[in-house]
Amino acid sequence: MIANTMQVKVRWGDADPAGIAFYPRFYEWYDLGTETLFASIGLPFPETFERYGIVGVPIVESGATFLSPARWADVLTIRSSVAWVRDKTFRVEHEVSVGERPCARGFEVRAWVERPVTPGGALHAESIPAEVRQRLGG
Amino acid sequence: MIANTMQVKVRWGDADPAGIAFYPRFYEWYDLGTETLFASIGLPFPETFERYGIVGVPIVESGATFLSPARWADVLTIRSSVAWVRDKTFRVEHEVSVGERPCARGFEVRAWVERPVTPGGALHAESIPAEVRQRLGG
Amino acid sequence: MIANTMQVKVRWGDADPAGIAFYPRFYEWYDLGTETLFASIGLPFPETFERYGIVGVPIVESGATFLSPARWADVLTIRSSVAWVRDKTFRVEHEVSVGERPCARGFEVRAWVERPVTPGGALHAESIPAEVRQRLGG
Amino acid sequence: MIANTMQVKVRWGDADPAGIAFYPRFYEWYDLGTETLFASIGLPFPETFERYGIVGVPIVESGATFLSPARWADVLTIRSSVAWVRDKTFRVEHEVSVGERPCARGFEVRAWVERPVTPGGALHAESIPAEVRQRLGG
Repeated sequence: MIANTMQVKVRWGDADPAGIAFYPRFYEWYDLGTETLFASIGLPFPETFERYGIVGVPIVESGATFLSPARWADVLTIRSSVAWVRDKTFRVEHEVSVGERPCARGFEVRAWVERPVTPGGALHAESIPAEVRQRLGG
Repeated sequence: MIANTMQVKVRWGDADPAGIAFYPRFYEWYDLGTETLFASIGLPFPETFERYGIVGVPIVESGATFLSPARWADVLTIRSSVAWVRDKTFRVEHEVSVGERPCARGFEVRAWVERPVTPGGALHAESIPAEVRQRLGG
Repeated sequence: MIANTMQVKVRWGDADPAGIAFYPRFYEWYDLGTETLFASIGLPFPETFERYGIVGVPIVESGATFLSPARWADVLTIRSSVAWVRDKTFRVEHEVSVGERPCARGFEVRAWVERPVTPGGALHAESIPAEVRQRLGG
Repeated sequence: MIANTMQVKVRWGDADPAGIAFYPRFYEWYDLGTETLFASIGLPFPETFERYGIVGVPIVESGATFLSPARWADVLTIRSSVAWVRDKTFRVEHEVSVGERPCARGFEVRAWVERPVTPGGALHAESIPAEVRQRLGG
């Protein structure tokens, strides 16, 4: 399975008045986990978006279950893995823990979206190129 | 059904290099939608957290489906409604649109969590007080 | 003097574990104050950037003095005014208060920057068009 | 001179529709630079705030000059150094570069602020303890 593990520290500005990470930050970390996973398999986002003429890999669906709080200054381990690859979309799953303690599990379904023909035009998902699909293990 | 509708504008710093809202921002808007819903039914968060001695209503689970992009400077309409209220948790659903165009649908399951006995201590969900439950339509 | 006043509420995610607004948020509010000031004088950013072919009005210099804390759920009044307009740059000053209590004073010097000839190319400041200068009171 | 150098990558969500880092993010990086500098001299924030009973080291004044844009996925080098230490306040200066190219210079003046006697009470700066002052090179 295509996977990558990275670490990130909960910053002062990530934590809320309750002293725990503001939950939308987890989705920022999932976003970072996916970008880092792509870089780890030779598909760094900036070059990849440029090469294939896509606007990016926007989110179609996402979700998370929160198991225990991440506190300010905790070092999070984020394990991101490709769950599946379809024609125009793929799913990445993320497991976040502090040491041995699981914090959260999340997922992202993303689409391969070409640049609009006219600026600000409608966005359309396209088939993921074969070589990208292959690197994603699909 | 207990519900509230609010509007928020996509700020420059909410949008990414593709010119569309960075997806974790939607969860910030859901968070804001829930806080505003509570205020609309006489349960403003600061006073409510203080009165009942809770650290807040942290997230247990959340998720979203993204239907169309929200662009920089778009005015978003966020309709937040209470889907259900259980003993210690409740679910709020959010519909985000730009004018008539639906952008995203999301949900949050949150728990009623008391302050730890010792600072930094373990967090435990407790029964939602009857008068809060009633205002939430549960 | 060209000026505009707006209000913004400190959100849960804006506040840190000390319960007060994380200071970089003030710069987000200054950014919002400038964008709102421009809209108030008939120069909404999206249309203005498009019409004049600029990437935006990036920051050259900024700064702030913090007088008293802004707390979670405080309603901030932000008064933004144009201090001066030069050939390629202009300065906006911001006063933030909670009711009568002053919280912060800040400023932004921004440049009028044209789109690079090639994507990712160097950015250059250009002369602010006469009609924009006039609306800014310069 | 007490100083520390760290690196941080510009994330997708840090960049704006112009493809460059949204300027308030620089202040988030200065905040991170100061926290990392303190950790590097044996004063990690969480333990330090607890030990001395302070709410933190809130900002009194900050500012920055922006020299060239930081783009999405750029790796920033942040050099943070203590400029001076006074009785109740200290100043940290930050230099941000991408490789050899300077991006920004900023500063923060922060105060040593004790916990209020009553929750939500007024915040007061106090004298920086001798051993902290010494580690800061003051």
